[in-house]
Amino acid sequence: MKRYEDLSPSLRCIMTPGPVEVDPRVLRAMSFPVLGQFDPEFTDIMNETMGMLRELFATENKWAYPVDGTSRSGIEAVMVSLIAPGDRVLIPIYGRFGHLLHEIAERCGAEVFTIEKTWGSVFTPEEVITAIKSFQPDVVAMVHGETSTGRVQPLAGIGRACREHDALLIVDAVATIGGVPVETDAWMLDAVIGGTQKCLSIPSGMAPVTYNERAEAKLMKRKQVERGLRTGGVQRSELPVVRSNYFDLGMLQDYWSEQRLNHHTEMTSMLYALREGVRLVLEEGLRERHTRHALHERALVAGLTAMGLELYGDPESKLTVVTCVLIPEGVDGESVREMLLSRFGIEIASSFGPLKGLIWRIGTMGFSCRENNVLRVLGALEAALLRYGYAAPCGLGVQAALDVYEANAE
Amino acid sequence: MKRYEDLSPSLRCIMTPGPVEVDPRVLRAMSFPVLGQFDPEFTDIMNETMGMLRELFATENKWAYPVDGTSRSGIEAVMVSLIAPGDRVLIPIYGRFGHLLHEIAERCGAEVFTIEKTWGSVFTPEEVITAIKSFQPDVVAMVHGETSTGRVQPLAGIGRACREHDALLIVDAVATIGGVPVETDAWMLDAVIGGTQKCLSIPSGMAPVTYNERAEAKLMKRKQVERGLRTGGVQRSELPVVRSNYFDLGMLQDYWSEQRLNHHTEMTSMLYALREGVRLVLEEGLRERHTRHALHERALVAGLTAMGLELYGDPESKLTVVTCVLIPEGVDGESVREMLLSRFGIEIASSFGPLKGLIWRIGTMGFSCRENNVLRVLGALEAALLRYGYAAPCGLGVQAALDVYEANAE
Repeated sequence: MKRYEDLSPSLRCIMTPGPVEVDPRVLRAMSFPVLGQFDPEFTDIMNETMGMLRELFATENKWAYPVDGTSRSGIEAVMVSLIAPGDRVLIPIYGRFGHLLHEIAERCGAEVFTIEKTWGSVFTPEEVITAIKSFQPDVVAMVHGETSTGRVQPLAGIGRACREHDALLIVDAVATIGGVPVETDAWMLDAVIGGTQKCLSIPSGMAPVTYNERAEAKLMKRKQVERGLRTGGVQRSELPVVRSNYFDLGMLQDYWSEQRLNHHTEMTSMLYALREGVRLVLEEGLRERHTRHALHERALVAGLTAMGLELYGDPESKLTVVTCVLIPEGVDGESVREMLLSRFGIEIASSFGPLKGLIWRIGTMGFSCRENNVLRVLGALEAALLRYGYAAPCGLGVQAALDVYEANAE
Repeated sequence: MKRYEDLSPSLRCIMTPGPVEVDPRVLRAMSFPVLGQFDPEFTDIMNETMGMLRELFATENKWAYPVDGTSRSGIEAVMVSLIAPGDRVLIPIYGRFGHLLHEIAERCGAEVFTIEKTWGSVFTPEEVITAIKSFQPDVVAMVHGETSTGRVQPLAGIGRACREHDALLIVDAVATIGGVPVETDAWMLDAVIGGTQKCLSIPSGMAPVTYNERAEAKLMKRKQVERGLRTGGVQRSELPVVRSNYFDLGMLQDYWSEQRLNHHTEMTSMLYALREGVRLVLEEGLRERHTRHALHERALVAGLTAMGLELYGDPESKLTVVTCVLIPEGVDGESVREMLLSRFGIEIASSFGPLKGLIWRIGTMGFSCRENNVLRVLGALEAALLRYGYAAPCGLGVQAALDVYEANAE
């Protein structure tokens, strides 16, 4: 039989918009022996994690727990549970992940209305509110931070408009949670999905979600206890039953409640990782963490600009945690990326769809977002650009970043 | 702000039908720093894991990869991808997880036909084949090992009948993979789902699946490239597009193919765990591993019987990796379980639905399935039973198990 080698992945400096480097404390948490899913010690950890997630999402919501899957599993769980077939759904799109929301809503059987912005910019809240008035949707779903274009969508005001028009507002905060402010309650967001492998610096594998009583009321209208667990006959629900069992939030919340109604087997080691990762965020402090992300972005941008590189997109809506750089004329972007990875062990990202080949995307997220990584990526990028025919002014990139750090330390 | 304590879960001896104890090598694998999802080192690990899964599933299928979620995510992915709305689906049910298949098929929009066996027994292949002839289903979905009742369903012959009647056969082998033979190709199974947290002794979090060309042909008829990634307009698919984006196997296989079409962000640390866990299985050898599971079952059963306890269910169809024990008259099953956990650190399982309060379920799965665990659970169970009023004949349980081990060593 063929033998398989010991696992021994190389150490990387990961400066992409995710997955990013994982804090060693989180890696360590995953190596603890597991508990059974109904062991009281484990259900205590589940409850405690819910409390920590409420702090992370800045909410008093009863429900805040992870969906067991990658980030888009959380998005799909929220959408398939809150969108009944035939519902009118408004999706404002300003990048790839808006298109993903459209795709998912469509597969949920929704009647979808989209408004689109040129990639590289975002909507004003008024534009979205006007569309809400015009389409009268049951649900509005939108992306908070678009990693495909490096933009952040202002949300203030949209939540209130949704309440006035009796629509639910679903927000994909996969890229922003833990890196930039996400104010679930203050912005009146009805359901929010976070990602682990970006600003939380936890491996991909869970999707924390939160939702309020308005969202829960809709879940209750679609609720059904699982066959094989229910006693008595089928209950008729007021709205059609959710099309997914795995993603039915009404079932997930019964599992996460004191009732502990069996559903899936909770991902033990990933929950340990989530708890430790969110604990690190809360120890640092949300405000302090957002400030740190902004500082390293400033240093990175100063360095890139000093090297004569141009940033992509409308500066007003730039997302602090992703910096999109125009690939200079005559330079093959993939060769530079390949050299960074193979020679320096540094990863930056390419891009999707209309931006393919035109921009690189550099992340400053979570544990990856630190001074030594920013300095490394600037130094290595200068060397790789020189090697591939772009005469970056030597030394200026790193010096400009160092200037930012020193000014900040004063 | 409230401080959260260091994570420090107790060490448990877990003798349930899952999640079970995780091999320390698997725990260690999860603590490696992560690679980016498109890092060539990582895609090599993805490819290698596919090869290992083919060996595990005893198949030459091209497609063998994990779905990113708990075991039922793999079941739902296979069902929602292979069952088009309106399809005729036959579900033979002989325990709780058959009801789950019914539930999922229903949510997929299928026309479901069920046949049921009294819990504690299984179908003869002929009974299932007769139902196939009578219902003429498009899809047959059934459970291989039912942990709710501790039974194993013989599958030989059913695959051939499905081919003759142009039906696809989906098998839930969550509880059996890695513990009991699962012969994907020899039994002509069209799609099989395995579980990680049972006989593979990997934490819950991934669901390895495999499917053949017959299954793939159906996926191709429902295929659509994701919005935001596709070039040109919408392609019309021959059958309705899969209702889920996250669980669309047609998309997942593009991500797992050399094409690497972006979908979710693969769960890095869980993939490391899966690779190491399956590597342990292949190092031990499938046949040797099945023999080991049978040996420890024999010792456990000898011990329980010597204590005067009775097993539940038809002995002919007993699943080696789960042993169901009738709770003796007058004993409160939950008090015994609670004492085992809190005083001995040993976990055994309660049961579902009609069996609630009537049986305990003891698992002998994967890394948990070893001599010291079997001896510990027998000794502790005797003590707990004495404490709760059942006069187990003292000492006989452990001695009987030791006899089995010594006879085996000769």
